[in-house]
Order: sequence, then C-alpha cells, then structure tokens
Amino acid sequence: MKLWVKRLGLVFALPLVLVLGLALWLGAKLMLYKQVDDAAYVASKAAYLKTLAALPSKPRPNVLIILYDDLGLGDLGFTGSRAIKTPNIDALAKGGVVLRHYYAPSPVCSPSRAALLTGRLAPRAGLPNVVFPSDNLKRLSNILPGDNIRLPAEEVTIADMLGAAGYRTAMVGKWHMGDKAPSLPRGFGFQSYFGALYSNDMQPFALYRDEQIVVRAPADQTRIDRLYTDEAVKQIAASKPGGKPFFLYFAHNFPHIPLYAAPALQGRSAAGLYGDIVEGLDDGVGRMVAALKASGQYDNSIIILTSDNGPWYEGSAGAMRGRKGQVYEGGVRVPFLIHWPQGLAGGRQIDAMAMGSDIVPTLLDWLGLPVPSDRAIDGLSLRPMLEARAQKTHDLLYFYSGRRLMAVSDGRFKYHAVAPYLYVISGAGFGLPSQQGPWLFDLSVDADESYNVAMKYPDAAARLKAALDAKNAEMQRNPRGWKEVS
Amino acid sequence: MKLWVKRLGLVFALPLVLVLGLALWLGAKLMLYKQVDDAAYVASKAAYLKTLAALPSKPRPNVLIILYDDLGLGDLGFTGSRAIKTPNIDALAKGGVVLRHYYAPSPVCSPSRAALLTGRLAPRAGLPNVVFPSDNLKRLSNILPGDNIRLPAEEVTIADMLGAAGYRTAMVGKWHMGDKAPSLPRGFGFQSYFGALYSNDMQPFALYRDEQIVVRAPADQTRIDRLYTDEAVKQIAASKPGGKPFFLYFAHNFPHIPLYAAPALQGRSAAGLYGDIVEGLDDGVGRMVAALKASGQYDNSIIILTSDNGPWYEGSAGAMRGRKGQVYEGGVRVPFLIHWPQGLAGGRQIDAMAMGSDIVPTLLDWLGLPVPSDRAIDGLSLRPMLEARAQKTHDLLYFYSGRRLMAVSDGRFKYHAVAPYLYVISGAGFGLPSQQGPWLFDLSVDADESYNVAMKYPDAAARLKAALDAKNAEMQRNPRGWKEVS
Repeated sequence: MKLWVKRLGLVFALPLVLVLGLALWLGAKLMLYKQVDDAAYVASKAAYLKTLAALPSKPRPNVLIILYDDLGLGDLGFTGSRAIKTPNIDALAKGGVVLRHYYAPSPVCSPSRAALLTGRLAPRAGLPNVVFPSDNLKRLSNILPGDNIRLPAEEVTIADMLGAAGYRTAMVGKWHMGDKAPSLPRGFGFQSYFGALYSNDMQPFALYRDEQIVVRAPADQTRIDRLYTDEAVKQIAASKPGGKPFFLYFAHNFPHIPLYAAPALQGRSAAGLYGDIVEGLDDGVGRMVAALKASGQYDNSIIILTSDNGPWYEGSAGAMRGRKGQVYEGGVRVPFLIHWPQGLAGGRQIDAMAMGSDIVPTLLDWLGLPVPSDRAIDGLSLRPMLEARAQKTHDLLYFYSGRRLMAVSDGRFKYHAVAPYLYVISGAGFGLPSQQGPWLFDLSVDADESYNVAMKYPDAAARLKAALDAKNAEMQRNPRGWKEVS
Repeated sequence: MKLWVKRLGLVFALPLVLVLGLALWLGAKLMLYKQVDDAAYVASKAAYLKTLAALPSKPRPNVLIILYDDLGLGDLGFTGSRAIKTPNIDALAKGGVVLRHYYAPSPVCSPSRAALLTGRLAPRAGLPNVVFPSDNLKRLSNILPGDNIRLPAEEVTIADMLGAAGYRTAMVGKWHMGDKAPSLPRGFGFQSYFGALYSNDMQPFALYRDEQIVVRAPADQTRIDRLYTDEAVKQIAASKPGGKPFFLYFAHNFPHIPLYAAPALQGRSAAGLYGDIVEGLDDGVGRMVAALKASGQYDNSIIILTSDNGPWYEGSAGAMRGRKGQVYEGGVRVPFLIHWPQGLAGGRQIDAMAMGSDIVPTLLDWLGLPVPSDRAIDGLSLRPMLEARAQKTHDLLYFYSGRRLMAVSDGRFKYHAVAPYLYVISGAGFGLPSQQGPWLFDLSVDADESYNVAMKYPDAAARLKAALDAKNAEMQRNPRGWKEVS
C-alpha cells in the first residue's frame, strides 16, 4: 500500500518537475536574453550621417509620412469603400499620385515599419517579426527562434538621414520596434516623440513624450486620435516656409484592434466603429492639411499616406484574397498615395508595383542625398516612375513573412513557395493541406489569387522559383546585406 | 537501484496503458456504432410517397439538377470570371433566371447535399456534418459527437418524391450521404445510379453502377468527367417528349481537390488546371443541352445549376470574404441559375435571398405535388419570386455549420454569433481572437463582411439575435422537426 502511494506520487511528481524545469528555463531565457548591436556598422552609420551633415544645405520640401495600422485596401473612399467616407484623404489622392499595386513590406506590424523606415527588407533590417513588450511572456516568440527584440542600433532610419541633413524630425504615434534604449524613437533620429511604444492591444499601453510617460497605462484610447492629431498639427505649425524643413512620421495606432472612437465620432459612418475611426482619421488628415495650408507649406510638402499591412478581424481587403499575416494580396496590398504639389504632377494612378522599402530611396533621390554605402538597400527610388519617366521600378518584388521568403512577384505572375501550415489554414479554409503549393498566380486575370497556373506557365514558375531560391541563397550568405567597411 | 528501475518502468507503462486503453475505446466506438432509423417516420414517409403515387398523372417537365463541388461564386463567366470561359453555362444564365444571393445550405459537402435533396436544413435532415467513409478513422469525427454517418432512412428526397409521382429518376456523380444500405442513392428514390460515394479526396475512390463497383479504386480521375457526362447524356436521350419525364441529379465531383482534367483539356484555360476542369464542366453542360435539344426536350426541362459550397484551396470566392467551411459569404454564396423556357421567362437576375433547401418546395409547387405533412420543411417555394409575382421569398435565412447555428440574415443585415476558434483563425487571420463577435454586417454597403455595425444598429442586432435564439430553441425542442403522426 505504501509502495503504491509512493509510485503514484512519482507519476504525478515527474510531470510537475518537468513543467517547473521548463518554466525556469524559459524564464532564464527571457531574463538573460540580450541583443548585441554591431559596433562596426554603428560606426559606419555615424560616418554616413556625418557625410549627410556635411553636404551643402539647400531648400528642401517638408516630408509627412502618414502610416495607419491594419487599414485594408478597401477601407478608403479613393480605394472604393461604399461604407466609409474619407473626403480629405480622397482629395489628396486626387491631387497626388495613387499607387494601385503598392505593397506593405510585411504582412505584420514591426517588420513592415522597420522596412519602411530603413529602405531595407525586414529580415535585412534585423527585425523580421512582430516584437512584444519587455517582461511579457509573448516575447519568448521572439527570443526562442533567436530573433531580435528591437531595431538594431546599426540600422539607419529616414529620420536619422533627414535629421543629419538639417530637418527637424518628429514622430507621433506607434513605434513598435523596441521599448528599451537604444532602440527608441529618439535613438533613431527623431528629435521629438509623442506616442505609444506598441500596438494598442499590447500591455502596458501608455503614451510617452520622448522617454517619459505622460499618459499612464492603460491610456484612454478614445482620446489618442485627438492627442496624436493635436501633436501633429503642432509640429506642422512649428515650421514655416524658408525655415528649417520638417520630417513628421505620423504612425497612428488605429484602426488596429481594440477599436475606440471619440464619443463625437461614434455612429457616424455606415461601417460601424471601425468606419467611425477611419472617418476620424480622415478628419485628422483634414486638420493636418489645413495646418500645412495655414503655414504656407502645403505646396512644398511631400505627403505619403499608407498602411502597414492588410486588415485583421474587421476592415476590407478590397476584394483581394487573404488578410493581415498573409502574403496574399489582401495581407500586403494596401492603399497608397503621394501628394506634392510643387514636385509631382497629380491626378494619376499607377499600376506598376512598389513596396514600403522604396520610400527611403525615393525621398533621398528627390532630396539629393546619397544612400548608405555600407549596406544593401533593398528599396529602389520610385522617382522615375512617379515622374512618369519610367514604366516601372521593380522587375521583381519579394514577400517575406518573418524570416521566410514566402512569395515573389513580377507584377503579372506571383509565385508562392510551399506554405507553412498556419498560413494554409488561415488562407484556404481548414484541415491539412492536400495541394498546398507552390502556387503561381496570374494576377492579370486573377487578381484575387484563386488559380494556380504553375503548370500552364512552367517557364514563369521556374523563373520566379529561381529568383526566390537566389534571394534565399543571398540572404543565407549575408542576411543583413553588410558591405566591407574600413 | 531495483526499486528505481521499477518506478521508472511504471512511469513509462502508465501512459502506454492509457494510450492503449484509448485506442481500444475508440476502436470499439467505431466498430459498435450503429445508426438507428426512426420506424415511425419511415412509415409516414411511405404513406406520403403513396399519396404522391395516387395523384392523377399529368404531363410534367423534366428536371435536371447540376451540382458542382466546391465551385466558387467567381468561377463562372456569368458570375464575373475573367480567367475561365463558360459559354454554355452563360447561355443558360442568359436565357434563365440568375439568383445573385443564392446560398448553399451549408459551407461543406454532405450537409449541403442533404438539405438540397430534402428541402430541410441539414441538422433537421439528420446530417449536419461531412460524413467519412466506413472503416476510415476519420469517421470518429462523426461518431464521437454523436452525429449520423448517413442520411437517415426516414428522410424523403426529391428523388423519392418525383419517382413516386411517375418520373424516371437517375443520379450521376457524388453521393456523399452514406456508403451502406439503406442510405445509398437507390435507397432514396433514384432508380439508377452511376458515380462515386464520396468526395474525390476520400479513399477508396471507386465508381459504382447502382450498388456494384464498375471502376475499381483508385479510379482514374482524368476520366470521370467524361464518364459522368456520357451517363447524363444517355439518361437524357432515354426520354422523349410526351413520355415519362425524367429527373436527373448530376452531382459532379469537380472542381473539388485533387484536381484532374482529361489530357485534352489541360492548359486550355487562363486559370490553370482548376480552370481547365471548369471549362470541361462547361463542355459537359453543352453536351447535355445538345442532348435535350436533340430529343426535343430543351423547352420542357427545368435546369438548375449551382454549387454545394464556396471554394476551398483554389477557386474564386468572387470578392467575398471567406471560403469553404465558413458561413461568410465566400463560403456559402455560390452561383445559381434556373432555366426553363416553357415555364419561366428568362433574362433576369434577382437579388433577394434563396437557399438550397428551397429547391424541393419550389419544384413541388411547380409540379403540383404536396410537401410532406409529417415533418418540418425549412425551404420555401421560390416560385412566386421566380415568376416575378413577389419581391422576395425569405424574411430570414439561417446559416448552420455542423449543428451550430452560426449566422442569420435578413438580406440586408447578417448577424454572426460568437465564432468558434477555428472559424476565427481561418476567417480573420491568426492568433487568439480579441474581438470575435457577435458581429452584424450591413451587406447593403459591405458585401464582403468587413465592418461590425452591431452598435450602430442595435435594433437590427437584437432582432436577429432573437431570431437566432428562437431558432436554437426550436431546434433544441424538436431538432428533426417531427410532427404528430397517427
């Protein structure tokens, strides 16, 4: 009897010991994890920025990048929404250039932002996955596969560049590329910062001015749109024509879930709370445009407006297949407009491909600033295409999910490599995949990626597979794209 | 040392014993499971069919129901495909009536078919879930939750009814409502049968004539389209005007995966193998129409053409959200046309809602046959609407997934109850749901179900929730909808 009890005790004790051991191991992983920056490229970054600072100063346009969070391709007036009215954004689209095949560089938040701000694909910029807050167990999803938990200090952002070139640089809104120094906004060239370090569904959700909490967690999210827009308007009003130009990165937390709208907005749209919020965002654009006009800087400001990835639970993917988290069109094809009365003839729509990583090279091209020479820049300048001097910019675009290269497109044909399980169940239905790829889609007749034409166009499939393999090999050899530095 | 070994042995032995015990229990479940038919309603079914047989005979139109498997809303010419050409089907659509908001009664195969053939919602007809072949372990997914594994013998199909009323009845293609007597096609009123008992991804995939295997498993699937169409044409040619009318249920296995096309079709369409197959299906429609014309029966035949649910891995959901397995529009809204030169003015498209369960009552209405009085029939006759004497047929439509009532729609508003986890991950992206419902969509401005307007229209949400609760209560009280029989 006594032996029986002992044995039973052992049976229960063993799993307990295992679980405790695992918990200890995971806890240690979490606590002891340390991301190390690359001193050599921190140094070459500083040298590059010094070069920029040494260039002769000249008058340059203001730059305003407006980035929404999880806004879908079909969620704006100019992209076809019947339920949401966005007259201010539509006016910018009408007076500017719309890219109808603009792709977010990643189907999720952090990597999309890293690529947008550095001009490098997300794995290249060292931030392939969504990063979770410090001291949050979810961070294990970054740490266990050995991913970074913040934008590496050696990365160069557009704020670093423009700040070095004499701009007043400011950021308002969601950062989501690290929550500890040196990977905070002011560590990457933003001279001032007001906003939240994470997505609005992550805890603790507090608002910071520079590195100080000014609205304690949990921040009242019905108020943040107002606070963000007030700050943006203040930043705009602080500049004047002929003075120091400004760069403002306005990265809103909305319409990412959870959804919150100011009481005055609630019930306004035909698209529920989500639509109310987007119409509120449009109001904010109206206020920013008014501020630009009032300070005489409307004509001399480059406004770029887009989203970090496709829609999640709500939001319209605009008749495309897939949603956030997938490299189907619905997950990565997002609204995009660029508006610059003084520099760019408006009223045009372009169907050639572009990606978020093109923004940095495009701006540098217009502003007459060199790109860094110590590292690969994946984006290309859209300037010739935007100025209608070229038909297209990219022969190929690469679509990453995490560190995995999922698909490559030449604009007509999009080749999806074999998909991991989750991707398949979330994209195609449920159950184990029977025919899961690789898939080739002919977007010219099949915009919603419904028909695999790999057998019909074996040459295209082989060509794109070869490109994908070559890109994988290149990233294997030199994932961060470092070049020799002395 | 010896005690230590003993203890370790116990630690490993216990899980082994548990696993073995579980396997034995599951095996016993599988072997001993027996579905029992309801003798009282088998008897009242016989009485009803006797009534039909006793009705005075009169000339009646032929009926041809063409049902495809997993064909999506966007996969045909008349529903907007740019990549797939279906001229024969399009001609029927043009000469007939198209229902633009026709819904499959279930987002998966077996229940959709049960509802189509009985006029009852799938749980009502006793077949809420996909059934798996006998002797296949997957059948546990039917047996463990206590579901039926075949259409219960007491159910009455349209073949039972039309056969009793003097039709020659034939079925060609996929049955998928049981693979043992009495739940085989000829047990449910089909006088002849040629086809496969399951989906084409299930084993063993053999072809039967009546109850005999005529093409052994695994059947060469590049040949089944030809075999099915040959058989259909033979059935059509066996009738003549003024003779006994025929009812032919042509339930194709395609374009369900795995995809196979005859060599002559391969590479024909712009939509890959999937499109080749669908164009082949269209050829088959052309052959059936030609056979009807050749035998002088084209004008006097009711042709209904539709699909059992939305597309799975490939196939286009026609800009709708969701795919097979989901009650989002993309999973249940499918192409539908009805063509009957002698009885129905063609060239019209109707936007009011209809569902597969309406086919039986509609046909009975036209043919002057009574519906069964011993059981609830969920479908309604579409005749007034099809003949343009009514604006609509349904005030509400109910959407089931398995035995769970997932959604209810009044045509403008569609209310989704809280979604189970798989439904959410496959529908919305990935990860745990943060805001998962209930959701109300306003299809009048939001056809692709992107915006929850439950807060904007609380009355509509409450009304539809009440309808959903009432339906659940009704199904709880009397799931099979039995009425008193003497």
